[in-house]
Amino acid sequence: MNSRMNNVCRRMEKAGLKQLLITDPWSIYYLTGKMFQPGERFLGLLLKESGDHKVFINHLFPAPEELGAEKVWFSDTDPCMAVVAEYVDPREILGIDKMMAARFLLELMERKAAGGYRNGSFCVDDTRGCKEPDEQEKMIRASFLNDQAMALFRALVRPGLTEAEAARKVREIYRELGAEDVSFTPIVSFGANAADPHHEPDDTVLKEGDCVLFDVGCRLDGYCSDMTRTFFYRTVSPEQRQVYETVLRANLAAEAMMRPGVRFCDLDAAARNIITEAGYGPYFTHRLGHSIGMEVHEPGDVSAVNTDTAQPGRIFSCEPGIYLTDRFGVRIEDLCMITPQGVRVLNRYPKELDIIDPAE
Amino acid sequence: MNSRMNNVCRRMEKAGLKQLLITDPWSIYYLTGKMFQPGERFLGLLLKESGDHKVFINHLFPAPEELGAEKVWFSDTDPCMAVVAEYVDPREILGIDKMMAARFLLELMERKAAGGYRNGSFCVDDTRGCKEPDEQEKMIRASFLNDQAMALFRALVRPGLTEAEAARKVREIYRELGAEDVSFTPIVSFGANAADPHHEPDDTVLKEGDCVLFDVGCRLDGYCSDMTRTFFYRTVSPEQRQVYETVLRANLAAEAMMRPGVRFCDLDAAARNIITEAGYGPYFTHRLGHSIGMEVHEPGDVSAVNTDTAQPGRIFSCEPGIYLTDRFGVRIEDLCMITPQGVRVLNRYPKELDIIDPAE
Repeated sequence: MNSRMNNVCRRMEKAGLKQLLITDPWSIYYLTGKMFQPGERFLGLLLKESGDHKVFINHLFPAPEELGAEKVWFSDTDPCMAVVAEYVDPREILGIDKMMAARFLLELMERKAAGGYRNGSFCVDDTRGCKEPDEQEKMIRASFLNDQAMALFRALVRPGLTEAEAARKVREIYRELGAEDVSFTPIVSFGANAADPHHEPDDTVLKEGDCVLFDVGCRLDGYCSDMTRTFFYRTVSPEQRQVYETVLRANLAAEAMMRPGVRFCDLDAAARNIITEAGYGPYFTHRLGHSIGMEVHEPGDVSAVNTDTAQPGRIFSCEPGIYLTDRFGVRIEDLCMITPQGVRVLNRYPKELDIIDPAE
Repeated sequence: MNSRMNNVCRRMEKAGLKQLLITDPWSIYYLTGKMFQPGERFLGLLLKESGDHKVFINHLFPAPEELGAEKVWFSDTDPCMAVVAEYVDPREILGIDKMMAARFLLELMERKAAGGYRNGSFCVDDTRGCKEPDEQEKMIRASFLNDQAMALFRALVRPGLTEAEAARKVREIYRELGAEDVSFTPIVSFGANAADPHHEPDDTVLKEGDCVLFDVGCRLDGYCSDMTRTFFYRTVSPEQRQVYETVLRANLAAEAMMRPGVRFCDLDAAARNIITEAGYGPYFTHRLGHSIGMEVHEPGDVSAVNTDTAQPGRIFSCEPGIYLTDRFGVRIEDLCMITPQGVRVLNRYPKELDIIDPAE
C-alpha cells in the first residue's frame, strides 16, 4: 500500500502539489486497504509531501490498526472541517479530490484552510489507472467469467421472455458462476428500448425482429467486467444488419489502433469516423469508452476531449453504438488492456452478427 | 412540480440568493419529476430568481418534454461548465448544492462564473424536508409494510441461521410483501457484530445469548422506511437487559418530546442524557437520527449540532444505541413524523424486550 501512496506523492511532486485531500472512498480503499462507506459523513485522506499523511474518520466507522496514515477521529457533532483545517498548510495550494462534496469544500474555503484549491485528483486517479500486474490478472479473470456468462445469457432468449425477467436471471447466473455481484445494474434491452443506451429493463416482451442487447458485467475478486453484445431475434432487417456491421467495424478499427502511446481521442475518432462515414454519426451519442477497475467507471475516458496517451496497464472499454430512436440500437463493447506490445482485448465472446432462433 | 420550485425560490429569496445550482439527482427528481442517474457526468438544475430556470443534461439521457425548466443539452465532448457559466450571472452569488462534485465546482470558480459561491443547499433540502400530505401517506404506508415485515424477520430466527442468510431472506420477504426494493443494504447482526452500528452481514452463526439486531427498511411507491429492532436469542443476561431497557427509555423519552417547535438538538440530548446517566454515554457513538423520505438519509440530522426546530411534515428516525465492542449492541429505531398536534410514530412494531426461543 505504501508504494501506492508513494506513487501518488511522486505525481503530486511533478504537479507542484505539496498536499492533497482525497475523499473518494474507492481511492481511499486503494491506498489504505480499507473500504469505508461514509454516506453523508466526511471521510478524507490527506497526503503530504512530508509523508506525514492523515486519515480523517468518524468514530462510527471501525478502522483497522494499520492504514498507512495516522488516524484523526471525529464524532457526528465535531466540526469536522475545523479538524481537517488544523492539518492543512494554509500557505500552500491544497489539491482536491474530483469527488469532494461542495458542502465540505466550501467550508474549508471559508475557514481559509489552504492557500488555494486545485483539482489534484489526477495524482491518485492516474495511479489507479495504471493497473498493477496483480490487478491485471483479476481484470482478466473477471472478463473471462463475463465471456462465459454471455453464452448463458444468449441461451435465455426464447419466446415470451421479458427484459426484467432476463435481467433477474443475469444476476442469478453471475452468482452461480461465482461472481461476487453484478458490477452495475444489468441492461437488457429489446427492440426500440435499445435506442436508449441506459435503458432500464422493464416488462417489454421479446418479439421477432427485435435486437437483443445485453450490457452486463460482474465483480470478481473486487474487480469489474463490462461487456455488451447485441443479438437479433429470429430475423434481421437489411438496415439492422448494416447498422450492426458498421458498429462492429468501428469497434474493430479502434481496437486495431490500441498500443502504448496512442491518444484516447484518436481511438474515439477512429471509431466515430467509420460510423460517420456510414451516415450514422449523429446517432453515436456518447464517448467511445471509459476506464474501469475496482469501479465500473473510473476517470480517464476514451473521448474526443481526452488527449492523454494510453500506457501499459490501462484498461478501458471500447463500445461504439448506434441508436435509432423508437426503432432499435446496437452497441458492441469489449474491455481492452494496453500491454507493452500492444493490446489484449479481454473479451473473447464472438462479435459476428448472431441471429438467435430458439428452434434452430 | 412548479409549486415545489416556487417553494425553493421563496427560500432563496429569504436567504438573499438570486441563483442556485442544484446537482443532487434526488433533488432534481423532486423538482422536475424525472430521475436522471448521471454517474460521473454533469447534471444540474439552475434556479433563478427571475423564474428563468434551466436544466443542463447530457444528450445521453433521454428527457421528457416537460421538466419545468428549459433544457440545455451538451455532449460528452462539450466543456459543460462553460455551458453552465453562460447562464450564471457573474455579478451575483451562486448558491451551490451540498453534493456538487469538486471537479465541477472548481472549474466554475476558475471560469469566474459567479460573484461568489455559497452552500445554498438548504433552500431545496428544507423544502424536501417538509413532506407534503401525499408524501406523508406514502411514508406511512412504507413504514406499515416495514412493521409487517419485522414480524416475518423475527420468525427467521432459528438454530443454525447465519446473518448473510437472514439478510438474503429479508430481501425476499420485502419483495413478497410488495416492496419495490430494500431502502438500504439490510443490517443483520448477531452478538458482538451488533457492536458495530454499520456491520455487514457475514457467515456468523446465531448462538444462544446473542442479541439479534435487524436494521432494515424498504422502498414503497418511491419512499423509504427504516426501523431497527434488537431481539435476544434464547437467553438474556442481566447486563443485556439493562442496556436494552436503557436504550428503550432513551427512544421513548425523545419520542415523548416530539412536537412542532422542538429543537433537533434537544431530542438528541433527551435520549443521550438517559444513556449517559446509566453510564453508557461513551457507547452511544452516533447522532440520534436522520431525516428520511425518497432517500434513506436526507439532510437534517437529529444531533447535538442541529439547532433547527421540528416542523409539521418533518420525518426522521429516532435511533439511540449502545455498542459494547466485542460483546453486543442494542439499537431501537422508529420513524417519527411531526404533526400539527405533536408526533406520529410511524412504526408500531412492539419494542418491549423480546427473547426469541424457537421452542417456545
